[in-house]
Amino acid sequence: MKLLIINPNISHSVTELIEAEARRSASPGTELTMRTAAFGVAYIETRVEAAIGAYATLDELAIHHAGHDAAVVAAFGDPGLEAAREMLPIPVVGLTESALMSAAMLGGRIGIVAISRRIRAWYGETVDRYGMTSRLAGIRCLDEPLPNIGTVQQDKGEQLVALCEAAINEDGADVLIIAGAPLAGLARSVAGRIPVPVVDGVNCAVHQAELLARLGVNKATDGSYAAPPEKGWAGLSPALGRLVGRGEPQ
Amino acid sequence: MKLLIINPNISHSVTELIEAEARRSASPGTELTMRTAAFGVAYIETRVEAAIGAYATLDELAIHHAGHDAAVVAAFGDPGLEAAREMLPIPVVGLTESALMSAAMLGGRIGIVAISRRIRAWYGETVDRYGMTSRLAGIRCLDEPLPNIGTVQQDKGEQLVALCEAAINEDGADVLIIAGAPLAGLARSVAGRIPVPVVDGVNCAVHQAELLARLGVNKATDGSYAAPPEKGWAGLSPALGRLVGRGEPQ
Amino acid sequence: MKLLIINPNISHSVTELIEAEARRSASPGTELTMRTAAFGVAYIETRVEAAIGAYATLDELAIHHAGHDAAVVAAFGDPGLEAAREMLPIPVVGLTESALMSAAMLGGRIGIVAISRRIRAWYGETVDRYGMTSRLAGIRCLDEPLPNIGTVQQDKGEQLVALCEAAINEDGADVLIIAGAPLAGLARSVAGRIPVPVVDGVNCAVHQAELLARLGVNKATDGSYAAPPEKGWAGLSPALGRLVGRGEPQ
Amino acid sequence: MKLLIINPNISHSVTELIEAEARRSASPGTELTMRTAAFGVAYIETRVEAAIGAYATLDELAIHHAGHDAAVVAAFGDPGLEAAREMLPIPVVGLTESALMSAAMLGGRIGIVAISRRIRAWYGETVDRYGMTSRLAGIRCLDEPLPNIGTVQQDKGEQLVALCEAAINEDGADVLIIAGAPLAGLARSVAGRIPVPVVDGVNCAVHQAELLARLGVNKATDGSYAAPPEKGWAGLSPALGRLVGRGEPQ
Amino acid sequence: MKLLIINPNISHSVTELIEAEARRSASPGTELTMRTAAFGVAYIETRVEAAIGAYATLDELAIHHAGHDAAVVAAFGDPGLEAAREMLPIPVVGLTESALMSAAMLGGRIGIVAISRRIRAWYGETVDRYGMTSRLAGIRCLDEPLPNIGTVQQDKGEQLVALCEAAINEDGADVLIIAGAPLAGLARSVAGRIPVPVVDGVNCAVHQAELLARLGVNKATDGSYAAPPEKGWAGLSPALGRLVGRGEPQ
Amino acid sequence: MKLLIINPNISHSVTELIEAEARRSASPGTELTMRTAAFGVAYIETRVEAAIGAYATLDELAIHHAGHDAAVVAAFGDPGLEAAREMLPIPVVGLTESALMSAAMLGGRIGIVAISRRIRAWYGETVDRYGMTSRLAGIRCLDEPLPNIGTVQQDKGEQLVALCEAAINEDGADVLIIAGAPLAGLARSVAGRIPVPVVDGVNCAVHQAELLARLGVNKATDGSYAAPPEKGWAGLSPALGRLVGRGEPQ
Repeated sequence: MKLLIINPNISHSVTELIEAEARRSASPGTELTMRTAAFGVAYIETRVEAAIGAYATLDELAIHHAGHDAAVVAAFGDPGLEAAREMLPIPVVGLTESALMSAAMLGGRIGIVAISRRIRAWYGETVDRYGMTSRLAGIRCLDEPLPNIGTVQQDKGEQLVALCEAAINEDGADVLIIAGAPLAGLARSVAGRIPVPVVDGVNCAVHQAELLARLGVNKATDGSYAAPPEKGWAGLSPALGRLVGRGEPQ
Repeated sequence: MKLLIINPNISHSVTELIEAEARRSASPGTELTMRTAAFGVAYIETRVEAAIGAYATLDELAIHHAGHDAAVVAAFGDPGLEAAREMLPIPVVGLTESALMSAAMLGGRIGIVAISRRIRAWYGETVDRYGMTSRLAGIRCLDEPLPNIGTVQQDKGEQLVALCEAAINEDGADVLIIAGAPLAGLARSVAGRIPVPVVDGVNCAVHQAELLARLGVNKATDGSYAAPPEKGWAGLSPALGRLVGRGEPQ
Repeated sequence: MKLLIINPNISHSVTELIEAEARRSASPGTELTMRTAAFGVAYIETRVEAAIGAYATLDELAIHHAGHDAAVVAAFGDPGLEAAREMLPIPVVGLTESALMSAAMLGGRIGIVAISRRIRAWYGETVDRYGMTSRLAGIRCLDEPLPNIGTVQQDKGEQLVALCEAAINEDGADVLIIAGAPLAGLARSVAGRIPVPVVDGVNCAVHQAELLARLGVNKATDGSYAAPPEKGWAGLSPALGRLVGRGEPQ
Repeated sequence: MKLLIINPNISHSVTELIEAEARRSASPGTELTMRTAAFGVAYIETRVEAAIGAYATLDELAIHHAGHDAAVVAAFGDPGLEAAREMLPIPVVGLTESALMSAAMLGGRIGIVAISRRIRAWYGETVDRYGMTSRLAGIRCLDEPLPNIGTVQQDKGEQLVALCEAAINEDGADVLIIAGAPLAGLARSVAGRIPVPVVDGVNCAVHQAELLARLGVNKATDGSYAAPPEKGWAGLSPALGRLVGRGEPQ
Repeated sequence: MKLLIINPNISHSVTELIEAEARRSASPGTELTMRTAAFGVAYIETRVEAAIGAYATLDELAIHHAGHDAAVVAAFGDPGLEAAREMLPIPVVGLTESALMSAAMLGGRIGIVAISRRIRAWYGETVDRYGMTSRLAGIRCLDEPLPNIGTVQQDKGEQLVALCEAAINEDGADVLIIAGAPLAGLARSVAGRIPVPVVDGVNCAVHQAELLARLGVNKATDGSYAAPPEKGWAGLSPALGRLVGRGEPQ
Repeated sequence: MKLLIINPNISHSVTELIEAEARRSASPGTELTMRTAAFGVAYIETRVEAAIGAYATLDELAIHHAGHDAAVVAAFGDPGLEAAREMLPIPVVGLTESALMSAAMLGGRIGIVAISRRIRAWYGETVDRYGMTSRLAGIRCLDEPLPNIGTVQQDKGEQLVALCEAAINEDGADVLIIAGAPLAGLARSVAGRIPVPVVDGVNCAVHQAELLARLGVNKATDGSYAAPPEKGWAGLSPALGRLVGRGEPQ
């Protein structure tokens, strides 16, 4: 099994957090290819940053997917996920979607704990995109500037645990998602202190990517997730252009 | 890994179909314990049959879950699933829920193909219970009496493929679920003829049960999926009574 | 008019509360048959307890419905209600459904006041099952252990009134349901202190059961509420088996 | 028990149909006061006609409600119902709401059969106003001009039965409402030919009005269904002005 | 361009506030005809007042619309709007609808700030009528009696600004509507103190009315917004009767 | 008034169609700046093409918005619209959103007529993103390959009119949107043949962009539509980087 994991933002320190949790999560024998977006922003918390991250992710996926069994879009909010799923011949999962679908099988109402106030709107819209808003207990978030995105787990660990408790007691969450690639692995370390199941986007995504690859289903050749119909294109990387428009550029 | 798989109806021939697909699906080294409901009906297609199957399933799970890593409620419609999830210390999945959550990561709108007209209402209510109605393209079904529930795949194979095609072309399905334990394994044999991904409840449930066991999350001790509070009970099997009411019967 | 009223839990003291309110509610000349579940738990507040109560209720209904004009499932949460409605030739109502439908004709947003924190999730899911979530102002509940389920009205009366006030002032309720068989009759005694209409599940259910019997509609012989199609069965009480599977057991 | 029944349109022949069914429906000893709108249109099938009918109904209710135990707004679509419920000290029901709430206790999905194509939009919006759209199987309607609104039952009986059958077989209705005051009583005469329960708006409304009166709940003095706060008014009938604005006109 | 603007309540001081803001809003060359309801209440905050205002508005529109390019129903809550849209050959807009549709193009979640607690239910139902509830962040309101509806802006200005801030910080509003004709113009004067876009119902309605007139679309002659089919009528003003029922009164 | 109009795909022939309709729509004195995406595909009908178009659009907007009063994203489906709205200090509208919000003020249920079967899923998801799914009557589309995207109006005019009629008669549409930049202007030429109002995305977008500019609201500095917080960036055009990440690239 070979998985391609894309960090849609440009922070190599976050890629390393993702990789560490991905390696803890992967089955024995699964190989991981890690890629960091070639352009974009340090971390994604707004719609415009997600739109940039989506394009960077699609380009990485187009260039590097060959030879892999599945791919992971490794930012919470899943920038470009549905687009990638249309485009690629292999299964693609995102952190939010994987975490939601896994959490949904562990309880009724799902709480999300996140790293910034600004990120709430985008996360809420992501949950809604998947039709899962009726399952959402709420989104709780840290409410202060983060001096260092790479050490947020150490710097804000206690506050994150307190947010988990509020999600259970005040929002009625039955299961929690600790959200955002910078928090990858935190669920593992705090699980013992939280009285409901706690899942991690990277952990869930690696497992669900392996699962979809093992299901062995065919790529759609009809319906709205078939590859896009052939059409003129220009100004894209050759790998992306060939997947999306087919043929040569105009 | 040890999985406990309960067939909520009394048909041993259906248990055999479930077991065959479950063995094709399980990871190397996974052991399966198969159980058939001790009482109930030949197959479940109505609310009252599901209520009976739920109780029979809870009793089997209570009696046999010890020593297993996860459990599967192996009827589409998932009778007793949420109840089992509250009650047991291990993860429990159902065919419908597993198939829906897996399908949701393979496309946008999900079509279901089923074995009887009567079963549609119950399946639709099951999808709704999970908050997934907005993802449902439709439920298509065979519309004739089934002389033999154990050979429906052979007897009705072509009609089931035609229903798949209608789900794609008329309902806009991006991914299909072939629903119902009596159809276990059919997805595998017809996948090559269907232009969108096709998933099977048993296959998805075995994979998702393994996945949840591997995630290693804790059983809830708070929230609405904690074990039920201690209370008086009577007339239950000792195993069920001890899990639900604790202590001795009144 | 003869009504069959089933208490889905095993507490005879609760059956007595239900009976007292049912007798206050029934029209002159209506006869009541009271039944207490033959097995199960002392009171129902979780999904697993409801699944057990559903089966016990179906069995009581199957055995005793003959000669009655309508039946009442007398636990809030209505365990087994839709199943019973499929199975029986007479109308069946539940406390939650009757209270919601009556309350909906007395105001816009409906508040529910209940006896335990744990019960909230199950009640919320019950309201959702009826498609009435958009009418729900909220569910308020007592938040302490109940030493004696049979005397909760006397022990917690003031707190229940305070919950009613909060439902009006903070949740925007236009009408209130005091929920749960152990609170049967409370609405009557506190109504004078609450500035919106207050309804009681038992009172509403008895009235709606009489109303449905008087409407004189036919039992469905088509659609998803027709009796279940004939099929093999085993291990059920003869009365239940004959209603669900028809014919003799396998 | 005294019920005030308002026909919101100006057709006395329709008032007679309503009265005949209301008398068949009322309990022994219930007295009926029938009123026909003093102004408006021959029958209501559009939003503007409903707005006119609402005002005419409110005026009739204001003038005549004294001495009654409950009131009925006797046009399907319930023009002015929520407004009347705010304004009056007695319970008020409408044909659509009563039929929906009764039907909801007889099955899952509710089909409506109506007398004109134009009326469908208004009926659909009425169902939505009550939050019941998820319970609606569909609205089927006659699709030709009605030469005589008072004899539609005789003229179009067979077509109405065919619409019922389509609602069951094609829309999946479990229970049917035959809608519109001009069809009052039709459910009674065709019930034997329809394989699901069939309810009638007038029949349901009379029964639910009696039921609400018997529940004996208090009029709201807080929340959004309390009588409107005192304020200046002008140009209303004295009865309406005193109920809505209090005091004397400006 | 000529716009007809109806104040659905009887307060001439409110008509003046509306007119002042409408004149600030209108394009150069747009002429305004202002009308105040001939009967009704001083201001509208309940369902019954809205039903009265709807009828008064329809009558004014019927009598005065000739020669205008579009019309505005100038009370928040839009009494009679859809009815007017069916009836008239020219576009008609309401304050709530115009403000919601404009606000929806300025942000994601929309907050409403209003002048009385009682008005909240009616405003919430109005938003729901337009299918926009999922966009609503919340409705905040003043919570004290208003001694003078004509000077509420001066008397309660600071409190209204504080409500705006709460809507942003606590409800997550991205854009605000200051609601109710008595607050017409307030958005303009407080905009500099509020960190999100703030819109005003009158301002939006005048602009959207001009826009719809400029789009130059045809009046529907089919579908549910065509003029009502010809039918008997009585007791209406001749202008209203001719638009709704056609022909002469019965 | 100066408007910046971006065609998110690379087809200059489509830009010309957009420009022609935009010039017919704009107020006297409004100046238009037309831009065509610098890279991407010939026309957008899938999620991946929309993701590419979103990025191309954001880059054009970043580079060229200075000196304009509002901007238009001129592809149906509105690629990058919410992202642009966050990023830019001026109002931004899209064709779908503008058409939906305008159509919503002209009728109840909105039908969409589009140029390809494949495009339906993306359009449906766009409507859902705006919370307007309950207003959608349906999406009808041409179902054959389009030899020439620039002449689809001439080649397929009759078929498009037939789709409009089906949307009214079969889907219950009260108002229609003719969707997609390649159909810009078609609404104008066929309006006389369609019995409900027909709107055009470009026409609506130009009018709504002018309207929002005239409302004169402030750019959000708080809430989820404020400009993104400052953060590290790399590999973006300087204009885009400065708007999104602020400061200099990493």
